[in-house]
Amino acid sequence: MPAPDAAYIGLDVGGTFLKGARIDSSGKVLARLHEPIRKAGSTEILGQLAGAVETLEGGAGPAVAVGVGLPGIVEITRGRVRSAPNVPALDGLKVGEELEARTGRASFAENDANAAALAEAWLGAGRGASHVLYVTLGTGVGGGLVFDGRIWMGRNGYAGEIGHIQVQPDGVACGCGSWGCLETIAGIPGWARRAEALLAAGRPSTLAGRSPLDPQVVVEAARGEDAVALEVVDGAARAIGVGVAAVLDLLNVDRVVVGGGVASAGFFLLERIAEESRRRTFPHVFADVTFRLAELGADAGVVGAARVGMIGVGNG
Amino acid sequence: MPAPDAAYIGLDVGGTFLKGARIDSSGKVLARLHEPIRKAGSTEILGQLAGAVETLEGGAGPAVAVGVGLPGIVEITRGRVRSAPNVPALDGLKVGEELEARTGRASFAENDANAAALAEAWLGAGRGASHVLYVTLGTGVGGGLVFDGRIWMGRNGYAGEIGHIQVQPDGVACGCGSWGCLETIAGIPGWARRAEALLAAGRPSTLAGRSPLDPQVVVEAARGEDAVALEVVDGAARAIGVGVAAVLDLLNVDRVVVGGGVASAGFFLLERIAEESRRRTFPHVFADVTFRLAELGADAGVVGAARVGMIGVGNG
Repeated sequence: MPAPDAAYIGLDVGGTFLKGARIDSSGKVLARLHEPIRKAGSTEILGQLAGAVETLEGGAGPAVAVGVGLPGIVEITRGRVRSAPNVPALDGLKVGEELEARTGRASFAENDANAAALAEAWLGAGRGASHVLYVTLGTGVGGGLVFDGRIWMGRNGYAGEIGHIQVQPDGVACGCGSWGCLETIAGIPGWARRAEALLAAGRPSTLAGRSPLDPQVVVEAARGEDAVALEVVDGAARAIGVGVAAVLDLLNVDRVVVGGGVASAGFFLLERIAEESRRRTFPHVFADVTFRLAELGADAGVVGAARVGMIGVGNG
Repeated sequence: MPAPDAAYIGLDVGGTFLKGARIDSSGKVLARLHEPIRKAGSTEILGQLAGAVETLEGGAGPAVAVGVGLPGIVEITRGRVRSAPNVPALDGLKVGEELEARTGRASFAENDANAAALAEAWLGAGRGASHVLYVTLGTGVGGGLVFDGRIWMGRNGYAGEIGHIQVQPDGVACGCGSWGCLETIAGIPGWARRAEALLAAGRPSTLAGRSPLDPQVVVEAARGEDAVALEVVDGAARAIGVGVAAVLDLLNVDRVVVGGGVASAGFFLLERIAEESRRRTFPHVFADVTFRLAELGADAGVVGAARVGMIGVGNG
């Protein structure tokens, strides 16, 4: 049992910003940090992370543990970053080990989508469910599985990549090396590509001349019953529904949480995702699941990272 | 710890036959049973199961536990059969509870593909792996997930249905209510349908006039470089590869075991499945996995069912 005033620090490393928070053992945020990421090299970024820990402690005493969410592939067995396309300085680093050496605080690293999934399962839209699938919709489509309050890692920590379920066997090439992945259709560039194709085909639409054709813009037009926009939204929802249905039949989870920037499109999108999933899932499997929008917003990353630290030291 | 001579009974209920075995705690088969299933009603089938337990004990003393593999959907929370299309007399029965009342032996029920997956993970092609995906290819395409020696059940026991991952969004209707499922292409009727379509299109082939166009027949022709047969095999392997790749990226398992009647096609099919999976999976995820043909053959069902009983009483 942690002391009642025990504090944990979560850091969320993004391609542009470093975010951080100090939380108590109930998950309440006690302090925040938000600054441009300094990612020119590994020494610089590790120094920034160590400095952030000190800043967030703010004289309130040492944190019990630190967790770091990273935008890349993190090996559980060694905690090593295998690949982080948006922050190459992280490649090959054992971030937990390095940060622990610099701060003296027990430190752990995890993939950022997994950390956000953990936060939503703990305190957000996954509360009360035993088996949670978290899907994060942004430029990419990420995800995480949380079973009984723990991130499901698989053999080496790579589990949770719902964005790379192939939903269009003859689709466009994906960054992962496959093609027609869910991410190619439901990621932000996929929305724009589809809308542009329909406009280029001469379909009348309030979207004509709009740029960028972000999901928010498209969803707004779709709410106004713009036929082109509706087709784009339905196409994205269908792709996500194919992927989610695969997970439901495979894993029989009881909660699907949809988060990420695109999820700000709200119930308009969520309802369509749920309906597309329903059409493709065994009825008895679908009956077990509820769909929710993520609730923690921008806090999911830092709170989830702190929770990674909390679980890491056995206080979760 | 079970006594060294402790025995467990596994029963495997099929649409046509009831199979059974008595095994010791190491999995060695001590006695077998194979008889036509009597499935006119629930009393009859439960009576047959109870009789099979007595026959398999054969005066050697009471079995420590009994496990039953069932061709249908089994709820873990209540052990109730939700649906068993090939043995409707099972519908709604709590088979474990009913059998325990009739035999006095601790009794448990499980889906038959999950039981076979458990056996392969324990003693067969999944040995030594921590996270096993088992795929069984027959009329249907079933599956099971075994993590650290335990069947992964999901919320209510329905997990493992890899056969219903949608691999052809505009494909034919599937019995599950969706369409274009892996099973519609890689199940036995899918092989025949594809071969017939190619023959009907006038493609020359050694398969012309052959009936039934079972996978064994098709694979044999494909080994002889028959172009139509090769196309059918490659189409099935591609569909299975799309489904397996989805599972790999989602769960990062370290072993894929392919079993069921169609798997008798051997490495010729397995190699193609592995290659199709490789093309669609993150390289670091694919590097963690090995592909194997199932090793236990017809014993997987009964040995796995007995193992369900063994784990059920805490001796696993």
